[in-house]
Amino acid sequence: MKLATLRDGTRDGRLAVVSRDLASAVHADGVAKTLQQALDAWQALAPRLAALAAQLDAGRAAGAFAFDPASAMAPLPRAHHWVDGSAYVNHVELVRKARGAEMPASFWTDPLVYQGGSDDLLGAMQDACFASEDWGIDLEAEVAVVTDDVAMGTDALTARSHVKLVMLVNDWSLRNLIPGELAKGFGFYQSKPATAFSPVAVTPDELGESWDGGRLHLPLLVHVNGHLLGRPNAGVDMTFDFGQLVEHVTKTRRLGAGTIVGSGTVSNCDRSLGSCCLAEVRMLETLAHGRASTPFMKFGDRVHIEMLDTQGKSIFGAIDQRVVRSA
Amino acid sequence: MKLATLRDGTRDGRLAVVSRDLASAVHADGVAKTLQQALDAWQALAPRLAALAAQLDAGRAAGAFAFDPASAMAPLPRAHHWVDGSAYVNHVELVRKARGAEMPASFWTDPLVYQGGSDDLLGAMQDACFASEDWGIDLEAEVAVVTDDVAMGTDALTARSHVKLVMLVNDWSLRNLIPGELAKGFGFYQSKPATAFSPVAVTPDELGESWDGGRLHLPLLVHVNGHLLGRPNAGVDMTFDFGQLVEHVTKTRRLGAGTIVGSGTVSNCDRSLGSCCLAEVRMLETLAHGRASTPFMKFGDRVHIEMLDTQGKSIFGAIDQRVVRSA
Repeated sequence: MKLATLRDGTRDGRLAVVSRDLASAVHADGVAKTLQQALDAWQALAPRLAALAAQLDAGRAAGAFAFDPASAMAPLPRAHHWVDGSAYVNHVELVRKARGAEMPASFWTDPLVYQGGSDDLLGAMQDACFASEDWGIDLEAEVAVVTDDVAMGTDALTARSHVKLVMLVNDWSLRNLIPGELAKGFGFYQSKPATAFSPVAVTPDELGESWDGGRLHLPLLVHVNGHLLGRPNAGVDMTFDFGQLVEHVTKTRRLGAGTIVGSGTVSNCDRSLGSCCLAEVRMLETLAHGRASTPFMKFGDRVHIEMLDTQGKSIFGAIDQRVVRSA
Repeated sequence: MKLATLRDGTRDGRLAVVSRDLASAVHADGVAKTLQQALDAWQALAPRLAALAAQLDAGRAAGAFAFDPASAMAPLPRAHHWVDGSAYVNHVELVRKARGAEMPASFWTDPLVYQGGSDDLLGAMQDACFASEDWGIDLEAEVAVVTDDVAMGTDALTARSHVKLVMLVNDWSLRNLIPGELAKGFGFYQSKPATAFSPVAVTPDELGESWDGGRLHLPLLVHVNGHLLGRPNAGVDMTFDFGQLVEHVTKTRRLGAGTIVGSGTVSNCDRSLGSCCLAEVRMLETLAHGRASTPFMKFGDRVHIEMLDTQGKSIFGAIDQRVVRSA
């Protein structure tokens, strides 16, 4: 099934089931008012949401209406935990080269994660607001999963069964703030502003054979101002799958239901497939021509992130955001 | 007023108003079921909670009962944002010395923060569970504030007015996991397990003249296994006040209501006042005697963190936790 959170003036929005073709939706209040409430009691409520989805897909859901992705908040407009990995290690290697930083060999065996802000997650079509273009505004197109409760010390295989939903992410990064912030030793904070998510989150069964339990084997399509930036396959060159990422993050903690775990910027070693962030494009330009020619994003620029299934149909709807100057 | 979240089998608990002397409490369901709900509409609901508190303190609250701190969850059992500063820079300097790391001079002018896990916050008397003593289990006694909604780009003075609640924190740290994790460059994750909070959170007016709008000028009392570890004054040597910390964290983000901002380990330059974490004790021992003799915490050890007002009465109740091996 596919789930969205519709804007209704509240902080957590109103849960809706969305049809497989993303054309229609139906409020799911009868089951749970919000997605967090559904995740809090997923085992009991997911079958009821699935039944509603089946009715909707069969054209028999009472109260169905046209689904407008512009009315979608982030599936979880505020979550309790948003941890983002850097699972495509070839990307990490490139970005660090761009910063003039060496990458330790352990990065190929020990996942790298950081914790993002989870109190302010953006809807797919919400503007991304920044005070200055000088911060080096960059998109990062990713895949993320939402877990239920996960115990401390969960192994990678068991962790796979805790993946309840899958969605797309635009993990905005402020590249020019990163070097100074990382030099302080405590990781990202100011350099990682509010993150945006696809209009719908889907259960893994919606992905068919493209989902192998830990990786999503489909191209992630990224456009900037209408031009294709990249279409790497999210299942290729993902050094750590979602099970391994969850194992890593539960070493010393348990995860609460509704935890969002991100893949990090998708990146394939096959560079003909392009990139999912501008930093990678700029690094490749520097390697090829001695200097980066693609600028970071400017006010008014747009980014479009989408994933199509094997029939060419949008799975998650599109993240389609405009960069604007904050008021 | 003083607020607690009582265990009722739900994830977010049940909001209660607690009497000034911490002896009695009354459910606040008539105003808000949970503290997050109260914070979501603080301007409208705080006066109603304050009225209930006044009734309780006057012995006229219907349904009042004895307050048992063991029944308290964290005031916010799960929050949407928990960001911890390192405002006592002399502590940062010492801990880094202990790690053999130099501290850049900019640390005296540019606050250091990291984002902690906010999906699993521990009550004051909940056990702290770890898989191994080898991780270097350490307490960190701190002060924290809870904000309402704060806009991006808020200055330090304005930020002070967004402090709605104050509480105590035990920010557990796994010292032996820190060097390896920080070396990866993305900051803390595995080395910062679930954090614990005092039984009650209080509004700043409860602190009288001890609260200057940005700092809490009272000793923080820390005992380990019944022995005094430290009693530094939280208002002394706090290089960045809470207003400055909020200014720092809103540079590129807005904060959602219920954001928790921590001070970092309280530490005074006057070393006769002791320490609020074992790492600092061990560093001072190393400097004085060439080696650290105080071990990190073992299974079965207890930590007690409390703050008394100028009349010697407990303000927040005590954090009193036992270290146990995770099941």
